[in-house]
Amino acid sequence: MPDQQADEVAAIAERLAEAGARIDPVLEELLPRRPDDLLAEAIWYHLETGGKRIRPAICLLTCEQLGGDPSEALYFAAAVEILHNMFLIHDDVEDRDTVRRDREAVWVRYGLANAVNVGDYMLSVACRAVLMGPVEDAVRVRLMRAFSDTFESTCRGQAMDLNNRGRDDVTVDDYLEMVTLKTGRYLALGMVGGGIVAGLAAAAVAQIEVLCESMGAAFQIRDDVIDLTAGKGRGGVTGNDIREGKASILYAHAIAAARAGERREVIEIMRKPREQTTDADVQRVEELYRRLGSLDFAKAEADRLVERAFETIERLPVRDKSFFRRLARYMVSRTK
Amino acid sequence: MPDQQADEVAAIAERLAEAGARIDPVLEELLPRRPDDLLAEAIWYHLETGGKRIRPAICLLTCEQLGGDPSEALYFAAAVEILHNMFLIHDDVEDRDTVRRDREAVWVRYGLANAVNVGDYMLSVACRAVLMGPVEDAVRVRLMRAFSDTFESTCRGQAMDLNNRGRDDVTVDDYLEMVTLKTGRYLALGMVGGGIVAGLAAAAVAQIEVLCESMGAAFQIRDDVIDLTAGKGRGGVTGNDIREGKASILYAHAIAAARAGERREVIEIMRKPREQTTDADVQRVEELYRRLGSLDFAKAEADRLVERAFETIERLPVRDKSFFRRLARYMVSRTK
Repeated sequence: MPDQQADEVAAIAERLAEAGARIDPVLEELLPRRPDDLLAEAIWYHLETGGKRIRPAICLLTCEQLGGDPSEALYFAAAVEILHNMFLIHDDVEDRDTVRRDREAVWVRYGLANAVNVGDYMLSVACRAVLMGPVEDAVRVRLMRAFSDTFESTCRGQAMDLNNRGRDDVTVDDYLEMVTLKTGRYLALGMVGGGIVAGLAAAAVAQIEVLCESMGAAFQIRDDVIDLTAGKGRGGVTGNDIREGKASILYAHAIAAARAGERREVIEIMRKPREQTTDADVQRVEELYRRLGSLDFAKAEADRLVERAFETIERLPVRDKSFFRRLARYMVSRTK
Repeated sequence: MPDQQADEVAAIAERLAEAGARIDPVLEELLPRRPDDLLAEAIWYHLETGGKRIRPAICLLTCEQLGGDPSEALYFAAAVEILHNMFLIHDDVEDRDTVRRDREAVWVRYGLANAVNVGDYMLSVACRAVLMGPVEDAVRVRLMRAFSDTFESTCRGQAMDLNNRGRDDVTVDDYLEMVTLKTGRYLALGMVGGGIVAGLAAAAVAQIEVLCESMGAAFQIRDDVIDLTAGKGRGGVTGNDIREGKASILYAHAIAAARAGERREVIEIMRKPREQTTDADVQRVEELYRRLGSLDFAKAEADRLVERAFETIERLPVRDKSFFRRLARYMVSRTK
């Protein structure tokens, strides 16, 4: 990255940190910590582990950039953060992931029943928050529709993610559809909400969604790569996706590229129950992913999607595109 | 029940059945059955087991009765039905109940991960439905607030329900707070939504909520009694709540009424993991519930709450109260 761009990224990171700091008081208001309130206890146990509030910060900055009043978007921004964390809690239940951000997952600490209910409750609070902002009812309805559509897409993507596991016929296209639904729309929500509060027209909102779809898919692919090369902050263990049998882009590429024997071998390992998958199994699949070019393919695909996101920015029907360019560069810098 | 009242109940049951029949096409529109769509498959597997659609039917009738156009309330009514079923799916996960309406629970059939995600997805579709009706934005926002508040109360009640289990200090008041949150507000939602679409003032909506709180609590108490005397349609097994260690009203009454030795005995049995609770344990607790008067207390408390509900109807600020009286009588007749 050239020096000027690096400076811009640093500047936007600082603005995001400032905006993010406005969210915690709103979260405290929406989710007050009361004694003997196990819901609040479990929620804050989880919320305190990830304090950057990037998603809501993007919402506030986008609103400001497009000429809106970010304080009118505060509750929506908080709702985005609550939705994000609600998904993480349910995801860990669904994936049986025991560690989140280097601590016990909520379901491990508070039990599975509470984790499911805590997630449901957070969602209800997020809905309440979306309905709270000091905006006109027409804007409120647009915000609620954006929120609910995103939530719906994410669940559809999650269903594909869960049920692609162990499938021997999942393609790279299936994978891309899944991550677009699961991650893309979801990434867009803060920007979309900030835009709606600022009065952005529906056509421009749709373009922001396209932009974020590419970006979100790219992030998810890089996440698949990171799982293999560095681990996802779950105690630094690599190959978690292989243990879980996740149909990552690496898997989808590999089963198309492999010859019959190796293909069978990969599928067999992916289908093993998590606790029966040995370290040797994981190493074997990793080795195949590298040799079959799946790792390089994934990296190239992520780069292509990032490029497409930047192209979409150039077509955005807003006057000042430079904010979106800088924001996109910042987002990309965090996944490299 | 006098003959005239019995006729009225039969008449309203017929009207409810007619109104309920309008809901299935809306559910089919909102949740289309697509091939290879596991979400739709699991949802319809569940929805097809309970076809009476009483909750949405109450919404439509209330709307009509209060001078509104029930076709404007159709999507909201469908949302109420979807919310109800979403809770049942998550409840079965949380309680580890394997049977629902004499069939395998969704989580048993489709796996726990899918059951959690299917419930989340249904909730997103319910939100979408609330936002769809042909009403003004101000009405839409009122509907969405009622929906989201109810969802929130239900989750708070569920949290109390989950975490009261095995507590040795749960009181009848704790119990009543829990069921009011978990069941009362929830029962009100259809009536409230029908009223909002018909243009009912906020004060009258609040009275409907009070009415349903009493009614909902009464139903839940009768459900506790039925669990002990007849089983809850889960293969006819009685004493399920004891096996689960649920802090029912019977339990709350019994631990206050029992002497130290029997108190310890009941608490010990309730705290046993489900699979370690023997039939003899269940019989022992049942016997104590009867001997300590907990069963009679519960029945009397349910009657008292039903009476209070009828008193609230007399104070409802609507012209024609007879519809609400008949509806209440119908609801009560279903729990006797």
